[in-house]
Amino acid sequence: MDGANGSGFDVDHLPYGVVADPDRDGDAARTAVRIGPYALDLAEAAATRPSGAPEFAALLDAPTLNPLMGAGREAWTQLRTWLAEGLTDPDVQHSWEPLLRPVEELDARLPFEVADYVDFYASEHHASNVGRILRPGAEPLLPNWRHLPVGYHGRSGTVVVSGTGVRRPCGQRRSRDADTPVFGPSARLDLEAEVGFVVGTASRLEEPVPASAFTDHVFGVVLLNDWSARDIQAWEYVPLGPFLGKSFATSVAAWVTPLEALDHARVPLPPRDVELLPYLQVEDPAGYDLTLEVEIGGAVVARPPYRTMHWSPAQMMAHLTVNGASMRTGDLFASGTVSGPERDERGCLLELSWGGHEPWLLHGEERTFLRVGDEVVLRATAPGALGPITLAEVSGTILPAHADPYVLDHHVRDRHVRDSGDPGKSHGRDS
Amino acid sequence: MDGANGSGFDVDHLPYGVVADPDRDGDAARTAVRIGPYALDLAEAAATRPSGAPEFAALLDAPTLNPLMGAGREAWTQLRTWLAEGLTDPDVQHSWEPLLRPVEELDARLPFEVADYVDFYASEHHASNVGRILRPGAEPLLPNWRHLPVGYHGRSGTVVVSGTGVRRPCGQRRSRDADTPVFGPSARLDLEAEVGFVVGTASRLEEPVPASAFTDHVFGVVLLNDWSARDIQAWEYVPLGPFLGKSFATSVAAWVTPLEALDHARVPLPPRDVELLPYLQVEDPAGYDLTLEVEIGGAVVARPPYRTMHWSPAQMMAHLTVNGASMRTGDLFASGTVSGPERDERGCLLELSWGGHEPWLLHGEERTFLRVGDEVVLRATAPGALGPITLAEVSGTILPAHADPYVLDHHVRDRHVRDSGDPGKSHGRDS
Repeated sequence: MDGANGSGFDVDHLPYGVVADPDRDGDAARTAVRIGPYALDLAEAAATRPSGAPEFAALLDAPTLNPLMGAGREAWTQLRTWLAEGLTDPDVQHSWEPLLRPVEELDARLPFEVADYVDFYASEHHASNVGRILRPGAEPLLPNWRHLPVGYHGRSGTVVVSGTGVRRPCGQRRSRDADTPVFGPSARLDLEAEVGFVVGTASRLEEPVPASAFTDHVFGVVLLNDWSARDIQAWEYVPLGPFLGKSFATSVAAWVTPLEALDHARVPLPPRDVELLPYLQVEDPAGYDLTLEVEIGGAVVARPPYRTMHWSPAQMMAHLTVNGASMRTGDLFASGTVSGPERDERGCLLELSWGGHEPWLLHGEERTFLRVGDEVVLRATAPGALGPITLAEVSGTILPAHADPYVLDHHVRDRHVRDSGDPGKSHGRDS
Repeated sequence: MDGANGSGFDVDHLPYGVVADPDRDGDAARTAVRIGPYALDLAEAAATRPSGAPEFAALLDAPTLNPLMGAGREAWTQLRTWLAEGLTDPDVQHSWEPLLRPVEELDARLPFEVADYVDFYASEHHASNVGRILRPGAEPLLPNWRHLPVGYHGRSGTVVVSGTGVRRPCGQRRSRDADTPVFGPSARLDLEAEVGFVVGTASRLEEPVPASAFTDHVFGVVLLNDWSARDIQAWEYVPLGPFLGKSFATSVAAWVTPLEALDHARVPLPPRDVELLPYLQVEDPAGYDLTLEVEIGGAVVARPPYRTMHWSPAQMMAHLTVNGASMRTGDLFASGTVSGPERDERGCLLELSWGGHEPWLLHGEERTFLRVGDEVVLRATAPGALGPITLAEVSGTILPAHADPYVLDHHVRDRHVRDSGDPGKSHGRDS
């Protein structure tokens, strides 16, 4: 198809998304598949004779991918095969032409409704670097790290789609030598370059899902930016883990790459020196050879290699269910920051700036953490059947903190002022 | 109404739930309000002439309370007033009689669809006891504890309704002097007696919700048991917090007590010795005078007093949104274990047994943690307008761990065996 060849979005990729065309459909969101620079309306394609696939129409005529995701591996494979055949058949292509819209003219929506969101910590280089930065002189990795994929639950209600602005959060932080915390906009706002795995097939409570069932349950992959306010996080996180330092926003790509599209990207995991418990043993190739790219203000500042990750997504899934926890359609679990061994392979600014002590250069200027106006774009490529696949980017621009976090909504502000004075006044200032 | 007076479920309470009547409706779940030993079908009552309230019918004709919860404080108050009037008017009572069913003949369902689940750590006695048990000799409370309500996200997909059996989870644990972890059923299975707050009115991203808006957003209250596998938790929780040690199950009561029903239970918070940042300052009475009861195997083992909690739910809500995180209808945030200053006021077995070192007596037998077959019931009472209100209980019985966590589902088991041998064999044994 015109423009698909070599675009990274050829028929060997075919990621799924949800888009709205304000000019044509108003606010209505529709499922779509991306081919080159176009989005093909899936429900309409399924209903188009004679090449249609009415058996998919009900799954695809929805404002999210969740119905399709819940239909299971067999349906995913059938749909993908039908799409690839249609998009390489000139007659079908012709009948689908009216259903194609340039992606750039569409509004991207969050492609799936997020059930539970779990974030792992699966990069040895990232975990080791963070250990060295936060606990200098001590063993960088904690004793559990090599035995299980460390992870925790994040906030699923604040997962946003690529392109959404990210408001610098306010919160409590405390400097190392102070007795009491202060309140204000985060001064150490960070990105985390991650890969997210989207669960399609649910599992039942009390039934652990073995690593070998990974491809039955995981529908696809998205790039993910786990925005982090390091100063808020550092003060709050003991003993129960990160909370407000992360929960203000997590950005995901607008297009979900089907797991099958990454079959050619599978690589062995890096060697490990610890024997794993049986439920975490996997057969290689269990890793994925994605090369990520972190761009800030138009300049690439890091290229984290996903193939260096210590834990595979199949191990993450087996671990998160081994206690009997169920998964739901729409569950999202992410890798944690992807970092390689080299400085320019680090996937967050905490590492790139070594805790703020070693500035990095952006357009000749020394930088540590994010500033208002910074646009962060995460990209990735992977080997595909026909050439490199381009994972859909995830982007976000930092918006200024609110001078008073409560002034946004007049209703809330007025009540707040009426009920309890105006404590907001001292809450902080813009940055 | 017959049986309501003095039952703890009189017209000053009126908790909401979702029930199914297998004999009459098959699997269909319907919203209901509890009055004495009965459940009144809400959608049918709203549709019954001439005392009906057709304006509520659409909110109530649903398999969850979420539509009602999303309708906001004004609708909640109107519905509650209409119900209280109807239930004290002999003519209306008469017309509603066919819509009443004994609660004991109905299946209780999870009353609301849980969006995000957050668990706090708001009891000073609990946090101090845990600090003393886990870090003997050190300062029991970490430096942030008095400045902010420490909390973290839990798994919303494994919140279950009262009465659901709780399977003893398997997982990794490591003894203090071992190098490597072992896999097996948790040997330190615990309960946590908590109070959960159910969010009705959503809030928008980037808009912190002040503590003074608590009653606009919080629909009601449920007793909650945050089941915890202490050995799994101890090994996994650094540095990102509890994960599999908690995610296997969280039980909530089947009936949600409207926040208004607890107006008579409001009490001042205990004195504090630290000045709070403005967004956490609240006007008293911000606490609630609930007396909890922990029953195991038919014997009450503790009576945790909620009025001793250091952080109020309004402060928890203000904190969890102060970074701009939004709330959704169905968000659930819980208090953390409720413990008072006395030994028989401790709300979990980690504290009651002081880390397993000081057994407590149950029917004359020394006990530390939970055993298979133990039925745990949490109850609570609070002052109401007409007398004590009884919060709906939350119960659960411990089921044996699966000998092999993967044998439950033959489909999964067969694939697992075929693909990767039978690593499950060594996974553990029953307990």
